[in-house]
Amino acid sequence: MTTIAILGATGYTAVELIKILLRHPQAEITALTSREETRSVGAVHQSLAGRLELPLANLTPQEIARCAECVFCCLPHTASAKVVPELLQGGAKVIDLGADYRLGSAETFETWYGEKHPDPTRLGKVPYGLPELFRDQIIGANLVANPGCYPTSAILPLVPLLQSNCVEPTDIIIDSKSGVSGAGRTPKQSTLYPECNESIMAYSIGTHRHAPEIEQILSTGRGQSAQVIFTPHLTPMDRGILTVTYSKPAKPATQDGLMAVLRDFYRNEPFVHVVDHLPATKDVSGTNFVHLTVRITGGRVLTVSVIDNLVKGASGAAVQNFNLMFGYPETMALV
Amino acid sequence: MTTIAILGATGYTAVELIKILLRHPQAEITALTSREETRSVGAVHQSLAGRLELPLANLTPQEIARCAECVFCCLPHTASAKVVPELLQGGAKVIDLGADYRLGSAETFETWYGEKHPDPTRLGKVPYGLPELFRDQIIGANLVANPGCYPTSAILPLVPLLQSNCVEPTDIIIDSKSGVSGAGRTPKQSTLYPECNESIMAYSIGTHRHAPEIEQILSTGRGQSAQVIFTPHLTPMDRGILTVTYSKPAKPATQDGLMAVLRDFYRNEPFVHVVDHLPATKDVSGTNFVHLTVRITGGRVLTVSVIDNLVKGASGAAVQNFNLMFGYPETMALV
Amino acid sequence: MTTIAILGATGYTAVELIKILLRHPQAEITALTSREETRSVGAVHQSLAGRLELPLANLTPQEIARCAECVFCCLPHTASAKVVPELLQGGAKVIDLGADYRLGSAETFETWYGEKHPDPTRLGKVPYGLPELFRDQIIGANLVANPGCYPTSAILPLVPLLQSNCVEPTDIIIDSKSGVSGAGRTPKQSTLYPECNESIMAYSIGTHRHAPEIEQILSTGRGQSAQVIFTPHLTPMDRGILTVTYSKPAKPATQDGLMAVLRDFYRNEPFVHVVDHLPATKDVSGTNFVHLTVRITGGRVLTVSVIDNLVKGASGAAVQNFNLMFGYPETMALV
Amino acid sequence: MTTIAILGATGYTAVELIKILLRHPQAEITALTSREETRSVGAVHQSLAGRLELPLANLTPQEIARCAECVFCCLPHTASAKVVPELLQGGAKVIDLGADYRLGSAETFETWYGEKHPDPTRLGKVPYGLPELFRDQIIGANLVANPGCYPTSAILPLVPLLQSNCVEPTDIIIDSKSGVSGAGRTPKQSTLYPECNESIMAYSIGTHRHAPEIEQILSTGRGQSAQVIFTPHLTPMDRGILTVTYSKPAKPATQDGLMAVLRDFYRNEPFVHVVDHLPATKDVSGTNFVHLTVRITGGRVLTVSVIDNLVKGASGAAVQNFNLMFGYPETMALV
Repeated sequence: MTTIAILGATGYTAVELIKILLRHPQAEITALTSREETRSVGAVHQSLAGRLELPLANLTPQEIARCAECVFCCLPHTASAKVVPELLQGGAKVIDLGADYRLGSAETFETWYGEKHPDPTRLGKVPYGLPELFRDQIIGANLVANPGCYPTSAILPLVPLLQSNCVEPTDIIIDSKSGVSGAGRTPKQSTLYPECNESIMAYSIGTHRHAPEIEQILSTGRGQSAQVIFTPHLTPMDRGILTVTYSKPAKPATQDGLMAVLRDFYRNEPFVHVVDHLPATKDVSGTNFVHLTVRITGGRVLTVSVIDNLVKGASGAAVQNFNLMFGYPETMALV
Repeated sequence: MTTIAILGATGYTAVELIKILLRHPQAEITALTSREETRSVGAVHQSLAGRLELPLANLTPQEIARCAECVFCCLPHTASAKVVPELLQGGAKVIDLGADYRLGSAETFETWYGEKHPDPTRLGKVPYGLPELFRDQIIGANLVANPGCYPTSAILPLVPLLQSNCVEPTDIIIDSKSGVSGAGRTPKQSTLYPECNESIMAYSIGTHRHAPEIEQILSTGRGQSAQVIFTPHLTPMDRGILTVTYSKPAKPATQDGLMAVLRDFYRNEPFVHVVDHLPATKDVSGTNFVHLTVRITGGRVLTVSVIDNLVKGASGAAVQNFNLMFGYPETMALV
Repeated sequence: MTTIAILGATGYTAVELIKILLRHPQAEITALTSREETRSVGAVHQSLAGRLELPLANLTPQEIARCAECVFCCLPHTASAKVVPELLQGGAKVIDLGADYRLGSAETFETWYGEKHPDPTRLGKVPYGLPELFRDQIIGANLVANPGCYPTSAILPLVPLLQSNCVEPTDIIIDSKSGVSGAGRTPKQSTLYPECNESIMAYSIGTHRHAPEIEQILSTGRGQSAQVIFTPHLTPMDRGILTVTYSKPAKPATQDGLMAVLRDFYRNEPFVHVVDHLPATKDVSGTNFVHLTVRITGGRVLTVSVIDNLVKGASGAAVQNFNLMFGYPETMALV
Repeated sequence: MTTIAILGATGYTAVELIKILLRHPQAEITALTSREETRSVGAVHQSLAGRLELPLANLTPQEIARCAECVFCCLPHTASAKVVPELLQGGAKVIDLGADYRLGSAETFETWYGEKHPDPTRLGKVPYGLPELFRDQIIGANLVANPGCYPTSAILPLVPLLQSNCVEPTDIIIDSKSGVSGAGRTPKQSTLYPECNESIMAYSIGTHRHAPEIEQILSTGRGQSAQVIFTPHLTPMDRGILTVTYSKPAKPATQDGLMAVLRDFYRNEPFVHVVDHLPATKDVSGTNFVHLTVRITGGRVLTVSVIDNLVKGASGAAVQNFNLMFGYPETMALV
């Protein structure tokens, strides 16, 4: 049994995490924090009524580390990096669901997030919490950077094709469509129901912070840097990400051949299913699964992948990392 | 041609009103106000890009009355009543889409809205802007109180049955379901997309401000006061209200007989269609039409009616009133 | 470990059932049937890709009983009752998710379903699978009639109030709103996306087959027959039922008093949560929980309850019954 | 006043067309056809209750031509081309909203539609009904091929950039997202509400019939053939298409420069608005407008455009063509 604290427990990522952990036979939630909210978690998230009785509280890192062996940070950027050093010093292991420890350098962080990084010396040494690529590093880690939702959906189909030199690492176009829960629970006019419903829009073209994260991971283990154009869309649904990537073949290839590359790469992965059909986000809704496929058309290699942005794109992946870090079966509470 | 100002032009009611008026051959929008917003209307409402170029501005009642023969107030409660006297004095006619002039007494207003009424002497003398019931009063009026969206949907099916003594005025249950646009455009957690989508909830049971408005109009022309239980619901759709009413027959009746009462009552009304089938909100979406029907089952009389809350429930009704007040054909810009 | 067959495995109820059973440590799905479909279950339900490999097949009752200790019937009405006798004779226990064994008499069945009942002698002896009311009967049963979705949502809030003589059993109005999955997976124009989306409609007023089912259970243990008016609505969401009931107080009561009656009645029930706030269907989406509350207004007692129609309203309740019938913890695979 | 017949009046395109024509002061609908449906149009489309009383009927081309000066064909492919010759011979002008007359050769038609073309000699001579590009040809035509919905959304942003040699005509990627009404009103499991809601999926990658239509029009007036990769998506909304195109700059360019090219090209077009922001489909919902913009990022030129697939993508464009063909103001009934 492992004691758990969740920092920033008011949002959509946190409530999804709580629900997964309530099904986890080896997890015990002992603390939930919020800077402003002091009501019980059942009042903040009505779906937890009768399932978990715990107040939200504004705890210090020391208080948190005393009552939790594992801390999940669901905090805005820079907020995690301000408390992580003390949490680690207090003996807790940490899974950061935010962006603070994903990028490899403080310069890149400052360029894209517009603020100085509060804990720059750790950057570049924190495992990227995508077990399908970095399982060995995660198992022994005290701190893991949980991936962004869009990056997970884009990296998983592309890495096998890049590592096998099937596609070029440059001129990769990534066209992603996400449900609105990805935009968070803070009231904003742009995410009101009557603004988002019955409407789809592209946003942050050329400026989305997940672009450098994708490029960094796609560049891993290659001589050449990956270069992507990333177009996210806000889609009228609660959850789910569908990502289509368009890349250039690096050598002659057939669709069957590329399918075989994907199937071989993920043959032992419990959460990645390579499928023949074109998957829909609903196929993986509420699950930690990834469905992906590949096509060749018009001289381009297309991949199509779907995840649930709140599960495999956030809280499910975090529990997958938790299982690895604490020696539990990787799929515990997730299937 | 009539010059028009719209006060409080940032919300959903206002943009719907603007779109209707842009189709109106005799309306010219000359002023749009907002207390905070100074951008062009096309920036505030992207759907108006290229269709109307007019800045929002914080104008005084005098400035408004100088540039507009008709003023539509889309303001929060008490805000209209603070400017209406000066607008009228300046020579403008006013259609208030808010609640300030709907209730007949300042006491009732204060009970339900929790504030003193800023213009109490006019209460009880302002026509209720439901042309199907009060056309004659509206035609000659300088100020009209545009009805609430829920009241329109509940009053229209019930009044013919009450006036013909077919149903009892007490123990009337009104169960209404509204789209989320009815909750306005101000950012609130409760109307974020991921809160409302894929969910229906009842709210304000026993406390909704439209209940006294409904009771007041249902009591018109009856010896006995009407008494209703009103349950509104937030429904995962942009627009539309479906209202089911349950009342007690006051005398033996058949379904065909009640249908005949409704058809006779509305036989000359251009916007009210009595239908045989059970109507859906989509049938009237984007229109000023009302579809309604009646059933007898289990010893109760049920009515089912549908409107678009932003059109017949707000801006369409306002233009219908505008047409009557200014001598234009009642259906102009509305069919 | 219990072997399981699911009859009629192509619909929404079946796929939900499969997903719950895949999480159940003591359940092993050994057969899936369909009269027409012979593809693998992962082809029929893409969300099961990689999670269950089993073909659909048109098996005889004998074949089914040989490979399954428990049979879940997800079949149209009369189809279950045609095979249940042989399944029971073959030694299987049966949970019927359809309507065949819910009503107590063949006459009532024929009146409402328009067909002769194929297995009339069992009617009236089959436990109604609502463990909160009939747990003792379910535990020892070989055949259980899983409740209808609407009835579950209406019965649970009303029974405690009726049994404590707080409300009258007649003139009960039940206004229910259901997601579209309740209408099944057979292609129909009326449930196409562009017909249902952005629209709410009432249907089957006075004629819905769940009305006699509700009345029957509400009449249990009372001298007087319950009488309800039942108005179902099709709501633009996948899943969820919200039910508001309006009944007459049978004696003076306070809201706090009625809340206490509900809390006391359900104090040991793992799936029923009596809440202070007005619940939304999303609060219980994807779960076997029921959230319910009570209000007094305008001389009427109102209850508001929410369930997930596919879980507590169908497949979750079926697994709850399965757990009871086979001696597993009642909440296994359900929390 | 022009008399009008609509062939194939049971679908979403037809009902949208009827609603637009009901607002048109110079259009009189005199005939509606269906091969199977004989009920009144108000029964087939409940939203028309009380607005149009006309039965659907299975009329011959001769009967149609006798009662209508203009015929709108909303028929499946090859069905239009089987009746158009007789309609023209009977003296009617025809606007075909289907695909029969869009492609320039019978061979291309047969390749993509899998059937012999019933009227091959007219192919290549019928104006493509996009007034922004082919107004002069449309004005004098007796037969117009109304464009496909996806093509309209992709062609309008790309043509100005191609004609000004700003982008290369090859390696153009077109990623489009459409509402479900585009899939038609015929019952199919794949377009049931619970299949499409809360889900987005790509479909017909490399095989969609709108791809050759797009390539044909993009190739107009260029020495070189255009070549596109087209990925359509089914998006959980009723209506709207958002198209993002990715093309290669053909010469050094700035974003401002490309915006100027678009603004200049469409400066006199009443329905095309070049906007600075990234548009959402809701901005043009229910209208005949197109909003489009351009970005440069990562060495690619991106365009983003939105239309309502049922209006500018079908019935609105058809009325725009009707206005041109019959000498009415182009925007009549459309603004």
